[in-house]
Amino acid sequence: MTGAPDALPDSPEGLLGRAVTGDRRSVGRLLTIVERGGELADEVTELTHDRSNDVYVVGMTGAPGSGKSTLTARLVSLLAGDGHRPAVLAVDPSSPLTGGAILGDRIRMSDGAGHDAFIRSMATRGHQGGLALAVPAAIRVFDACGFDPIIVETVGVGQVEVDIAATADTTVVVVTPGTGDAVQANKAGLLEVADVFAVNKADRPGAQDTRRDIELMLDLSHISGSEDVAGHRPAIVMTTATEGTGAPELWAEIVSHRVHLEACGELARRRAGRVRQEVRDRVDQLLATTVDRMLAEPPAEEEIAAATSGGISPAAAAARLVSQLLDLDARRRISP
Amino acid sequence: MTGAPDALPDSPEGLLGRAVTGDRRSVGRLLTIVERGGELADEVTELTHDRSNDVYVVGMTGAPGSGKSTLTARLVSLLAGDGHRPAVLAVDPSSPLTGGAILGDRIRMSDGAGHDAFIRSMATRGHQGGLALAVPAAIRVFDACGFDPIIVETVGVGQVEVDIAATADTTVVVVTPGTGDAVQANKAGLLEVADVFAVNKADRPGAQDTRRDIELMLDLSHISGSEDVAGHRPAIVMTTATEGTGAPELWAEIVSHRVHLEACGELARRRAGRVRQEVRDRVDQLLATTVDRMLAEPPAEEEIAAATSGGISPAAAAARLVSQLLDLDARRRISP
Repeated sequence: MTGAPDALPDSPEGLLGRAVTGDRRSVGRLLTIVERGGELADEVTELTHDRSNDVYVVGMTGAPGSGKSTLTARLVSLLAGDGHRPAVLAVDPSSPLTGGAILGDRIRMSDGAGHDAFIRSMATRGHQGGLALAVPAAIRVFDACGFDPIIVETVGVGQVEVDIAATADTTVVVVTPGTGDAVQANKAGLLEVADVFAVNKADRPGAQDTRRDIELMLDLSHISGSEDVAGHRPAIVMTTATEGTGAPELWAEIVSHRVHLEACGELARRRAGRVRQEVRDRVDQLLATTVDRMLAEPPAEEEIAAATSGGISPAAAAARLVSQLLDLDARRRISP
Repeated sequence: MTGAPDALPDSPEGLLGRAVTGDRRSVGRLLTIVERGGELADEVTELTHDRSNDVYVVGMTGAPGSGKSTLTARLVSLLAGDGHRPAVLAVDPSSPLTGGAILGDRIRMSDGAGHDAFIRSMATRGHQGGLALAVPAAIRVFDACGFDPIIVETVGVGQVEVDIAATADTTVVVVTPGTGDAVQANKAGLLEVADVFAVNKADRPGAQDTRRDIELMLDLSHISGSEDVAGHRPAIVMTTATEGTGAPELWAEIVSHRVHLEACGELARRRAGRVRQEVRDRVDQLLATTVDRMLAEPPAEEEIAAATSGGISPAAAAARLVSQLLDLDARRRISP
């Protein structure tokens, strides 16, 4: 190696060849490519899909201000110190500009002596194809480069974010005392996706009340039958991320949940479900592209003009357009 | 007519026949049908699409607590008193249970002496096909029953709500003083869809500051070229809905915007754009149904199993499934 930094290869193959040997800049470039989407991103996904399917994915989700980023950083330090190579994908709903704090973390963590960890923020806007495709593609890149486990951090507001959290092997929901956070988490649908709860800022007044609120909600959801199919009741861990308290206990509960998932066969089912969802998202994207092109062509313009003038209904126009699009067998499927 | 209320007809045709003669229960039933979606809803849409395309649609949007419901009620009283037959579709993002306040308004308004108005709330959840289809279908029902104008009230948070507001002929954005509301509205993308601003609660301190904030944002958006294609600058009206102050001035600005739209040909373009969007939403729904069925069949299960085992990538599985779905011409469109 020379003293000056080498220029990065241009091709996904070249980048991946260097990334798997531990070159961090190449890992970063690959992540940028999959974040942008498009043809190059598809090439990266094609190169990384078969490397491994054994990486463990942990979701960390909670309201803004719950301290989940700090808690994630604690987990990363702990894991890196134990000889793991953890990676974090922080899905940040705000603009790239306000993602600065997380980028700051990334630099700090990767400079830490002996730490082999990678923290990357991903904006939720401006993607071709959207987060639904970029997140699994980024997980594959980390996986191919030997990072394990992968922690996906999302803000637990909005359906997209909850969906992303739900695709993890183990999902941690972070709540804080005294803010009605537990009730809010329940409303946002987070209770249903939680495998482990972290009551963070546990040194604050009301932490035990929050714990009891969660226990009560779990009791109620047990009665209504919404418990995990395999009969797992989420553990509740008290943490104070700013002090580092509770991070080892939280990791122990994540591992315990993993053991449970493996023992009952649920891990394989969750992963198959994740692939199914990814296939579905890609089908939707391909169809959306096809519809965009079709609607820009003269036959579609004619149908839309007819619907605008009231000659046919929008429903009839849509049915005719879809019928032009679909193969005969597929047409039979919608009009049996 | 007998003293006891008649049973409502079962068929959309029967209901519409009575609704157009002014039977309010039949109007309500038709709205319930289109809100639920499905085949009956499609029948209603087919019956109502060609009645008229000349109804005027006004969007009223703003943050929760901005007083837009009260302001809407003031407009309705004003219009009904002037011999119009206004209808309101309140798209309520909370659950049907908390829609009670709006339902209360409905009863009060329709019992008012001489008022021929119809106020209806629509929940944003639990629709087959979603709001994107239910809102235009409800507008058609009101139109076919002779209501005009139609005021669509949405909470201006969330992309769906902003999209609905944007499909109106004239969109009113309601902001309040002293809460940074104008800036929030800007962030939520409401500035771009506003044709008229109402600064409500104008008797509060800071109302003139809010007005200046809006003027400033309009100046800036003018510079950046995001102004209406036809060069229209949104008017700003000061209102105090609880007192009724400003409602006549607000209506005058809405009418003035309408005159502007008609004069420059923009009204026809907006309506064509609305129909185009509706056709697109219906195409998307038909394709989603088709994909659901396809994914439940054995050939799709095989592709998903191959992707889960790492034999092929999810992208390749998706491409094969889409290719099975599409007609040859459509396949050429995605792989030129």
